[in-house]
Amino acid sequence: MSISPLHDPDWRAFASDNYAGVHPEVLAALAAANGGHQAAYGADVYTAKLAEVIRSHFGERAETFPVFNGTGANVVALTSVLPRWGAVVTATTAHIHTDEAGAPERMTGLKLLTVGTPDGKLTPELVAHEAWGWGDEHRAQPLAVSITQATELGTVYTPDDVRALCDFAHHNGMAVHMDGARLWNAAAALGVGFREFTTDAGVDILSLGGTKNGLLGAEAVVVLDPERSSGLVFLRKMTMQLASKMRFASAQLLALFDGDLGLRSAAHANAMAQRLRTALETGVADGTLTGLAFTQDSQANAIFATLPTEIADRIRERARFYDWDRARGEVRWMTAWDSTPDDVDRFVAIVAEEFGRR
Amino acid sequence: MSISPLHDPDWRAFASDNYAGVHPEVLAALAAANGGHQAAYGADVYTAKLAEVIRSHFGERAETFPVFNGTGANVVALTSVLPRWGAVVTATTAHIHTDEAGAPERMTGLKLLTVGTPDGKLTPELVAHEAWGWGDEHRAQPLAVSITQATELGTVYTPDDVRALCDFAHHNGMAVHMDGARLWNAAAALGVGFREFTTDAGVDILSLGGTKNGLLGAEAVVVLDPERSSGLVFLRKMTMQLASKMRFASAQLLALFDGDLGLRSAAHANAMAQRLRTALETGVADGTLTGLAFTQDSQANAIFATLPTEIADRIRERARFYDWDRARGEVRWMTAWDSTPDDVDRFVAIVAEEFGRR
Amino acid sequence: MSISPLHDPDWRAFASDNYAGVHPEVLAALAAANGGHQAAYGADVYTAKLAEVIRSHFGERAETFPVFNGTGANVVALTSVLPRWGAVVTATTAHIHTDEAGAPERMTGLKLLTVGTPDGKLTPELVAHEAWGWGDEHRAQPLAVSITQATELGTVYTPDDVRALCDFAHHNGMAVHMDGARLWNAAAALGVGFREFTTDAGVDILSLGGTKNGLLGAEAVVVLDPERSSGLVFLRKMTMQLASKMRFASAQLLALFDGDLGLRSAAHANAMAQRLRTALETGVADGTLTGLAFTQDSQANAIFATLPTEIADRIRERARFYDWDRARGEVRWMTAWDSTPDDVDRFVAIVAEEFGRR
Amino acid sequence: MSISPLHDPDWRAFASDNYAGVHPEVLAALAAANGGHQAAYGADVYTAKLAEVIRSHFGERAETFPVFNGTGANVVALTSVLPRWGAVVTATTAHIHTDEAGAPERMTGLKLLTVGTPDGKLTPELVAHEAWGWGDEHRAQPLAVSITQATELGTVYTPDDVRALCDFAHHNGMAVHMDGARLWNAAAALGVGFREFTTDAGVDILSLGGTKNGLLGAEAVVVLDPERSSGLVFLRKMTMQLASKMRFASAQLLALFDGDLGLRSAAHANAMAQRLRTALETGVADGTLTGLAFTQDSQANAIFATLPTEIADRIRERARFYDWDRARGEVRWMTAWDSTPDDVDRFVAIVAEEFGRR
Repeated sequence: MSISPLHDPDWRAFASDNYAGVHPEVLAALAAANGGHQAAYGADVYTAKLAEVIRSHFGERAETFPVFNGTGANVVALTSVLPRWGAVVTATTAHIHTDEAGAPERMTGLKLLTVGTPDGKLTPELVAHEAWGWGDEHRAQPLAVSITQATELGTVYTPDDVRALCDFAHHNGMAVHMDGARLWNAAAALGVGFREFTTDAGVDILSLGGTKNGLLGAEAVVVLDPERSSGLVFLRKMTMQLASKMRFASAQLLALFDGDLGLRSAAHANAMAQRLRTALETGVADGTLTGLAFTQDSQANAIFATLPTEIADRIRERARFYDWDRARGEVRWMTAWDSTPDDVDRFVAIVAEEFGRR
Repeated sequence: MSISPLHDPDWRAFASDNYAGVHPEVLAALAAANGGHQAAYGADVYTAKLAEVIRSHFGERAETFPVFNGTGANVVALTSVLPRWGAVVTATTAHIHTDEAGAPERMTGLKLLTVGTPDGKLTPELVAHEAWGWGDEHRAQPLAVSITQATELGTVYTPDDVRALCDFAHHNGMAVHMDGARLWNAAAALGVGFREFTTDAGVDILSLGGTKNGLLGAEAVVVLDPERSSGLVFLRKMTMQLASKMRFASAQLLALFDGDLGLRSAAHANAMAQRLRTALETGVADGTLTGLAFTQDSQANAIFATLPTEIADRIRERARFYDWDRARGEVRWMTAWDSTPDDVDRFVAIVAEEFGRR
Repeated sequence: MSISPLHDPDWRAFASDNYAGVHPEVLAALAAANGGHQAAYGADVYTAKLAEVIRSHFGERAETFPVFNGTGANVVALTSVLPRWGAVVTATTAHIHTDEAGAPERMTGLKLLTVGTPDGKLTPELVAHEAWGWGDEHRAQPLAVSITQATELGTVYTPDDVRALCDFAHHNGMAVHMDGARLWNAAAALGVGFREFTTDAGVDILSLGGTKNGLLGAEAVVVLDPERSSGLVFLRKMTMQLASKMRFASAQLLALFDGDLGLRSAAHANAMAQRLRTALETGVADGTLTGLAFTQDSQANAIFATLPTEIADRIRERARFYDWDRARGEVRWMTAWDSTPDDVDRFVAIVAEEFGRR
Repeated sequence: MSISPLHDPDWRAFASDNYAGVHPEVLAALAAANGGHQAAYGADVYTAKLAEVIRSHFGERAETFPVFNGTGANVVALTSVLPRWGAVVTATTAHIHTDEAGAPERMTGLKLLTVGTPDGKLTPELVAHEAWGWGDEHRAQPLAVSITQATELGTVYTPDDVRALCDFAHHNGMAVHMDGARLWNAAAALGVGFREFTTDAGVDILSLGGTKNGLLGAEAVVVLDPERSSGLVFLRKMTMQLASKMRFASAQLLALFDGDLGLRSAAHANAMAQRLRTALETGVADGTLTGLAFTQDSQANAIFATLPTEIADRIRERARFYDWDRARGEVRWMTAWDSTPDDVDRFVAIVAEEFGRR
């Protein structure tokens, strides 16, 4: 039987790293894990191997639980470090608050206490705005902090940033969760090992991303401090995040660690964002792109910028991307593991043309 | 980079159809869907195509929502046909009651009202035991019936069985959900089209299985009567069952309909169960397997039998399977899309040897 | 201003102890607790005094948390002894299963595992039907047993009955909850102190009833083993069971312990049930009431009986009560703290008249 | 039997209207409703009468559902106007966000979208910050607005304020809920009938307070637009807010409407707040209380002020009240239905003395 694509495999946009497909090495890993029988629900050799590899990267106490998606990872992870009366202090821009349709509240009854930030990054001072009232039964108890690395605004916490937050949180009896949907991009940007900005900086539990970095679909909850988390196997199952044929989720995640595929992919995506930003900054500097301004640093694989809405809309007709805050003319341009220098250069040309037509 | 398997791709058991891997045609379909960018979260051409194919099989009103796993499909489907105060009448053996860790209750607050059955199949008379009390605020309102096709006990509802249940349910204002984790096996067993025992028999909403029938991991909620279901896109997202790179889930499900792969695979699994059962029945008849008895009909790909526990345990050491009810010496033997005649014959030989050692 | 009743204060039925009003001593206690200010939400002297009185009856470790109603008490109590993945083994006739509209499942995600009983009473053997599968992530973990004292069928657990259940439960790592909506009736029936069939028999947590025994509306969760329960103050608040003017709930409950009002009231209700039962039994014996049969022992304040439905309906027109299982012609007759011997005798006469008209 | 108070019935504070007791007319109403049997769970004549009285005040379509407490009223009301995927836009100071321990999120899965306000009052412009994204499955759907009348900051919405919000909300397909924990104080402050600032201004559903205004403990959900609300009887039961002896809740609420007791009590509480504020303003004006400043208007029965913390603490030792925001030295002084002019004058004298000791 011949199967042919229904889509144009050469079309790529700057809309989302979720638009990209699967890295060929990941497809090869799936094929290698196929064949014969393997015990279901995680009692397979790929899941065991993944746990071992994760320990080598995150420390010997790390425990790994593959799940289906990022929202699932976040909800399972946060629930496992909180009692039923717990609340989570997080940024107003956090994915768990803005893009998960209320899953944390609705699935396991987590209350979110949100704090505004200039750049998507929490600080101890910001967390303190909502970290109070312990013991008061009227107040949802703030017993966890959730940060996103890289943030939803494309910025990155340094190891020191993370450590300061973890020290503050632990001092107040709070656990720290890191939403690492783009952890690989952060690692590539920081140029340090995972441990330095996770386990060693004090993070207690991690949502380890994979899907946005070239997988078909696999994430994992990684418990870094097992003493702060409980019931994970039960929570994963009851939140409907337990894969029956888990070997294939684990094989995907393993592929990211194999030959540093994950770091290579993320570093490439980051570099493509830099290429795009540099070209656009040149345009701004030379007056070609007057009216374009950047609203955030681009430390990972995203660029946030404001530009006249009518120009943005004309560009969008030729190259897809999303508005971030249409009211203020802010857009988000994202690169992915498969973005090419040509893609970037073509996009810059389109931007320049549309600015030129003003 | 070379990736080699960590496992023995020639080992197969009779433990579960979840132990089997991915059909090669499905892997090919994944590769075909790869490359380039596709809009995330279902706005891709594969998901659109899947919806079209499903309509051709289940009727023009059918609406398709790919999800991650069977528990997710069941919870999303049932929730979409029930108000917050609804309850579900189902068999005591139903997967939603026995094997989903309370997900229906815990994730969306569904109350289950269970009824014992001899063979895993509900009837109007059995449903009536719990279908009462409408309007009484003290009673969780029984507003849905959930049946499993094929059942957890390997039996299959005929189109008439389903129609009788749907008539009873609709007459009482209840919706009917079918958990079709093994819908393909039922279709193969019945030898009729999907419509005949789903849409045309009155089923309102369906969990369409895929994973157990040769996929890597994909199921779908299929709404057959859109007037009875609401909010599905929101419910799927908030229950954490929305895949970002949905094209790959859809491509897997499409592969099952392509060239009748799904039916071929299921028919093969069913045939292997028949081969096994026939051989064992012969052994029982000729006295070789005295002490072995069958507890259910084998209409799909499962065999339920009782045998002396010490023999069962010795067989298990050589060929993995699960106890069903250890107290009464009942075991379950399952075949899969990849079970071979040789696998079956070898297993029969093992059984005979162990019975012979008594 | 004069306030006059809108109802007939002399009409009484045999429908429910919830139909009865407030004992005059309780109204007096409310008036005594009134006047001036008292700190809200339980930081008042009446709540402190109640805790002290409860300790004197249930043991020095007992902790008391007044709540609004019985369903609230049951849900708060069970939730405090269970992790998010816990399940409760209980009788199919348990109020938490049949009459709480799914509150345990919907409010805090408790899964109920029900077991049929002949008389509303669980035994270790019955509990064992559902007490298994610990550690299996697919199974809601059976970590609590809930029994009702007196049961919904009017029967009473002896101290030995309770001890056997608690021993079995604790041996299996399960907590024991007692729904004591009619605890006073049980105590009066047993003729022993509360401790003997609660704390000393091994019960871990108790729903202490009050409303059915002459209060306006107050119940309490009483933690008997604080090591098995956690987060109660937070759970009570988040389940919306925290009274702001708690002094009035506590004052009501205190009144039951004052001068043994609660025991006096319950013993009276039980005696009225006995008076009714004895008279009816006489009628059965002498042939006047042929066709009337009792379906349960009447150890507390309820009588369950079968009789021809047309006779039951004619009696009901003259004296209100509820069907229990209309299909089998079973009714429930309940007495209350305010039932009088005259009420009983009048009712017996009505029954006799209607049987005579056949 | 004689029952004597355990507390000093002459002590009163400025801490909370929840510290106050029960108005004597309410106790008399309870006594009048007592005696004999009444059908439980709301099928009694007092509840029927209450529904009638409420219709006379709020319009013929009004439907009344007594509940236990304010949090219960809010959660039941909001849930009944929202689908499972709904979210509520509300002020950051709203009781449902700050003081209900996450009950809205945890009990029925409501997501709250909070907006900062200067004075506790939302406006269409403020609501618009979070009222967007309808149809986007990633965003909890903002389908209700919740406002508090009088607000948690002691301010009051005019009928025009309410109407503007309702027009905006309805235009966007959103329902409007009013948390009327202090509705009587608002009505007294506005000097208009309930209808003018509720039903006629477009409010869809109301939490009608009672406890803070002299009841023992009773509130009600009042549905003003039955077309926007569904399932209320079921929701009330499953959220554990259904009183068995409901006649006593209804009798309390009826008492507030009888002879305008509720308005008289609230007007008195408001007047006592004015008396206090006027006296303090005089002190500020004449220099006696330099350092005291008011942070909100006092339209109902609360005064918010900043003063040096050490003075606040010394005053508190002599007359109890709560900090509102200790970091900025803000306190809340509340009056109640039973505050007396002497209480106020004594408190003013204490404040003056402690300011004098500086």
